[in-house]
Parts: sequence; structure tokens; C-alpha cells
Amino acid sequence: MSQRLKKFQRLLSSYQLDGYIHSNDVNIRYLTYFPASESLLLSFPTKSLYLTDSRYLEEARDGLDGVKVEQFTHNIFHSVFNIMVQNKVKRLGFDEHHFSVYQFKQLQKACPRDIQLVCANDIVEKMREIKDAVEITQIRKCLDLNLSAYKYLQGVIRWGMTEQDVLIKLERYVRSKGADFSFDPIIASGPNSAFPHARISRRKIRNNEPVLVDMGIDIDGYKSDLTRMFFLGKMPALYQRIYAAVSCAQNHAIAKIQAGVKAADIDFAARNYLESLGLAKYFGHSLGHGVGLDIHELPRLSSQSGAILQEGMVVTVEPGVYLPGQFGIRLEEMVLVKRRGYEVLSRKDKVKHS
Amino acid sequence: MSQRLKKFQRLLSSYQLDGYIHSNDVNIRYLTYFPASESLLLSFPTKSLYLTDSRYLEEARDGLDGVKVEQFTHNIFHSVFNIMVQNKVKRLGFDEHHFSVYQFKQLQKACPRDIQLVCANDIVEKMREIKDAVEITQIRKCLDLNLSAYKYLQGVIRWGMTEQDVLIKLERYVRSKGADFSFDPIIASGPNSAFPHARISRRKIRNNEPVLVDMGIDIDGYKSDLTRMFFLGKMPALYQRIYAAVSCAQNHAIAKIQAGVKAADIDFAARNYLESLGLAKYFGHSLGHGVGLDIHELPRLSSQSGAILQEGMVVTVEPGVYLPGQFGIRLEEMVLVKRRGYEVLSRKDKVKHS
Repeated sequence: MSQRLKKFQRLLSSYQLDGYIHSNDVNIRYLTYFPASESLLLSFPTKSLYLTDSRYLEEARDGLDGVKVEQFTHNIFHSVFNIMVQNKVKRLGFDEHHFSVYQFKQLQKACPRDIQLVCANDIVEKMREIKDAVEITQIRKCLDLNLSAYKYLQGVIRWGMTEQDVLIKLERYVRSKGADFSFDPIIASGPNSAFPHARISRRKIRNNEPVLVDMGIDIDGYKSDLTRMFFLGKMPALYQRIYAAVSCAQNHAIAKIQAGVKAADIDFAARNYLESLGLAKYFGHSLGHGVGLDIHELPRLSSQSGAILQEGMVVTVEPGVYLPGQFGIRLEEMVLVKRRGYEVLSRKDKVKHS
Repeated sequence: MSQRLKKFQRLLSSYQLDGYIHSNDVNIRYLTYFPASESLLLSFPTKSLYLTDSRYLEEARDGLDGVKVEQFTHNIFHSVFNIMVQNKVKRLGFDEHHFSVYQFKQLQKACPRDIQLVCANDIVEKMREIKDAVEITQIRKCLDLNLSAYKYLQGVIRWGMTEQDVLIKLERYVRSKGADFSFDPIIASGPNSAFPHARISRRKIRNNEPVLVDMGIDIDGYKSDLTRMFFLGKMPALYQRIYAAVSCAQNHAIAKIQAGVKAADIDFAARNYLESLGLAKYFGHSLGHGVGLDIHELPRLSSQSGAILQEGMVVTVEPGVYLPGQFGIRLEEMVLVKRRGYEVLSRKDKVKHS
């Protein structure tokens, strides 16, 4: 059994729980190293059990170490109930984010009154915030390929190509390295770049306009997320001015990163700088987010976040300025939080130890 | 405003609702033809309103016809509440499948007691079960490309290639036609094919073994889903026997398809045939599912399904026999339910009008 799962099991007592029902695939994967799907992991103080259907049974028995695998039949929550009774569970924890209202009602129906269902949110998500050395190595691998894909793209992107053509080139490159995208890339040319989450179109890229590319790599479940601006031809002065502003805002934010700092303060650093130039009103999204087994995970770098940065967190820093009808500029790096300072994982030259 | 959305708005009164909160992207897309994400659609008896954040605002205003677009700020459910009060809503419908327990609690907190939250599940899903002529044309387009991709694959698949190599070839082909996969394909060679939902590996395909390929196409949101078996070299007698059994089971099931028939009876036809050969125990999943804007949608063709087939439904029929450690065979077609009989959309030669 993994150290992570043992740690989770030990955590149960601090929530006064004697059982827990994991329904989130990524959390189950994190705890067991098994790429789960359509299954439940049931944890108790000293053991865990994996429930799946016949399609995944063989695979799960092969792939899970130190965790018993059982098959559920028609109603998975009946199986859950039987197992809880066998294990004399009185307080069963679950995460409100990972159960639909419908599923929760099914679970309630299956569990009689003497098993109490207790909300205990984000326990695994909080474990996942802090990356260990192996995870950071995995993320570095993704970033290496992400950066080399952007280098490759710099050499092949031409006006006259459509956004879709650029996608095909990128995808071939990434696949040829045996990797996947971590999300559907954004490739937004000219005025399309003013839509922060533009969809890829058949629009032909013209000379003298920018192309915003937001793309990530997935290798064995771990992910990267980087945004770069490409410019074909001659940059107008306005574009240069906005680019410099976004880049400075990003540097201001990154410079503040260190364990113990409030996530909201990092967001504020970028936003405040853009505000000083009258540009904050064109920056409508939050500054960044954690990245790991999910492309968006804790912590959030936003004005609303209550998180405090901790050593081992990996976050994006991605300010943007979007001028409707004209163009948008977003620059995104991935940064590792250190006890003192930070490391910009996506820039080889930028390590700060204060 | 679309006819679909008008129809939905008219349906509200039959549930004694004066408001509805849609949170499912695909349902919102179905009703509005706008490729929604991270947004809510609020419907009233004679109008609807789209709530989104700043990232999607411009796009939504451009893309939505006859639906007002508003921006929400920090808490989307506060915006919902304000709009409900403005519209004097007393009974607000929602779908239990599309709200997490957490989201539902937020919604409850935002809505005071005089707005009653009412479960009203699957209303849009039931509309989506029955495809109109335009949707069937879209699905046919996906199937045309799906079939031609399989024809292409037949010409290029060789032993010595890895499953990953096959994926790269398929992906290039599909992308070059301007389409996407509708889900991550399954490409399972030799003993890997005994895992119904095998993950693509770097295993090299050998001579004299099968390759199961389960792949679908997505064109403008509509989807196809087809499974084919490829065999390189000389087929063993056991493989031939099992293939014939699965194919017969499939034909038995398809032959029963017609409006008015129970979905569970279609599943039974295939399962019963395999049972007569002692093979039903190797067929651990249900027979099929609806396909449209989602790869899995209503109706389900399973022993547990209470659905009755209706004219215009499009379903997969995909029996399989999986022999652990040896190989698995699944054959999957897509079938249109007709008033009398059916049309196998994925076989040009197979139309039955009884």
C-alpha cells in the first residue's frame, strides 16, 4: 500500500471518521497510483478497498498494490453499505464536490440511520497541493516537452496557416514524443486572442498579427500549462506596450512568491500593477492555479483565495490583457514555491533564492 | 430563440415550475446551439437568460440568439437569486445529476425560503433522446468518417507497430479531415483486448493476434462510436468461434430494434444468445447506449433499463466476449430506431423495414 494512502487512513481519526468514500478518479489515482475510472475507493483507519465493475476488474487486480479489489453488481451503493456494515462504520466521510445530489441521495437511501454521512471536503486535494520530488520531476518532464513544442512551433508557424493547421502540427509533434495534451489547446489569432478561452477556428492567420497559444502536456497523468504569444510580422506599438505591461505584471507577481505568502497577494501584485496603467479592467480572470494530476487544482491564485503558499506547491502565473475587437495577450509560467523564494520551472534562467 | 428552447420553456408549466436552472454544458448547447462552458442558463416560461463570466462574455453575446447574456461576478448563485427575485420565481427546477452536493448547498444558501428548489431531472436529456433530421445527418457525417478511418486503418495496420503508433496514424487521419475523436480511442492488441476498457500502451502488435479498436468521431459536437476487430495473420479456431458468436449476438439484438420495444429486451436478445453458448459470463457490460451530443446518453440498452425505444433514437449495439489472459472481441454498430424496424447507420447494406 502506498505511503499516501496510509497517510490518508491515519488522517481519518482527526475528522472523527471510521470510514471514507472516495469517488473522484484523480484522488483515487493519487492515493493508489492506479489510473482509476468508474470506481470507488473505500478507506478505513488501517485498510482500503477498491470497488469496480467487471470491465475494470482484471486491470484493477493487476494494478493495485495492498488494496483489496471487489466487484460491485447492480447498485454500487448497496455494496458500499454491506462493506460499511462489515467494518462497523458509524461515521462515513465523503466530499461534497464529488457527489452529485442524485448520487448522494442514492447513498443515503442505501445507508441506514446508524451510519452517519459526514461532509469532509478537500482532504486529498490538500495533500495533493504539496508536490513531492517525484511529482516535481514529472512536471518538469511535461514542461521540457511543452517548451520544446513551443520552440518547434516558432519554426513552423506561418501566416496563411489556419488555427486548425497549427493544432495539427502541434499535435503531431506532441504525439511523436509519446505524450498527450493536458487539455484542448487554445490557438487564437488576431482578434480571436481577445477571447480568453477562444475555441480553435479555421481562421487563417494573417501577417502582422499575434497568435496566442495556451497548451499543456500530459505525461503519465501529470500536467503542464503554458501560454506563449507568437507574432508574425511587424508589431504595432500598442501591442508592444501591452505585451510589456503583461510581462511586467507577471514578474511583479512571481517576485512575491514564497512559502507563507497569501495567494491573494500574488494576484493583487499583478492586478495592482495593471491597474496603475489603467489596464486592470481588461484582466477579467484570476491570476493562476495549482497544476498536478489535474490541470486546475488547489491552490487558487485569486483575490478570493484564502490559501497561504507552502513549499512544494506548483502554480501558474498567467496575467492577461484582452482588448475586445483588437487582440489579447496572456503570458503564463509555472512556478514552484520554495521555503525562501521560488523557481520558475518554465524558465531555465529564473531561479530566486532570497 | 431556438425551437428547442421554446419547447423547453413551454414544458415548465407541466412541472409546475416558473423557473429552471441549467448547469450542464451539453444541455445548454442543445437548447441554444451555443457551445457553452462554465455558465448557467436560466429559463422562464417565455424567456431565457445566459449567465457567464468575463472570459466568455463577448463570445456568448455574439453566439446566442434571442437569449439575454449577463455577467456574473464573484458568486454566481447570488446573481441567480437576484434574477429569480426580479422574475418573481416561486418554484425553481434543477437537475440532481448536474449539481454537486456542494453547489446545491451554495444555491440553497443564496435562495431565501420563498423560492422553492424542485428536483426535475432529465427533462432536456429526454428531449435529446429523439434525434431530428439535422441531428441524424450530423451523426451520419461522423459515421462516414469513422468508417473511412477504419478502412484507412485496415490498409496501414501492421504487426511490429505499437498500439501508440496506431493511435498516431488514426489521429493524423482524423485531424486531416478537420475532425476530432469523440473520446480517447481504445486500441487493444492481443491479451490487452480482454480488458473491455483497455488503455493504449506501447505494446508491439504481434503477428497472428487481434487488435480491438473502439473509436468515435466528433464533428461540431455530434458524435459516433464504433468498435471493429482487426486481425493480423492466421486466425485460431477459438477466435473465429467467438467472433461468430459475438456477431450473431449482435444481429439477434439488432433484429429486435423497433419503436415500442423495451430497451431491456434488446440487451436480453444478445445476452440470451451468448448464454446459449455458455459465453454470457464473459459479457460483463451492458449492450449499448444512446449517442448524440454526448458519447453516452439516454436511452441505455441494459437489463436494468426501463426505457421503451422510440422513433428517432440512435443507439449503439455492442456485445462483447472477453476471455481473460487470451483475447476479447467486441463489435459495435450504431442503429437508428424507426417506427417499423431500424436502420444500421454504420452498415450501408443493412436497412430493415418490417
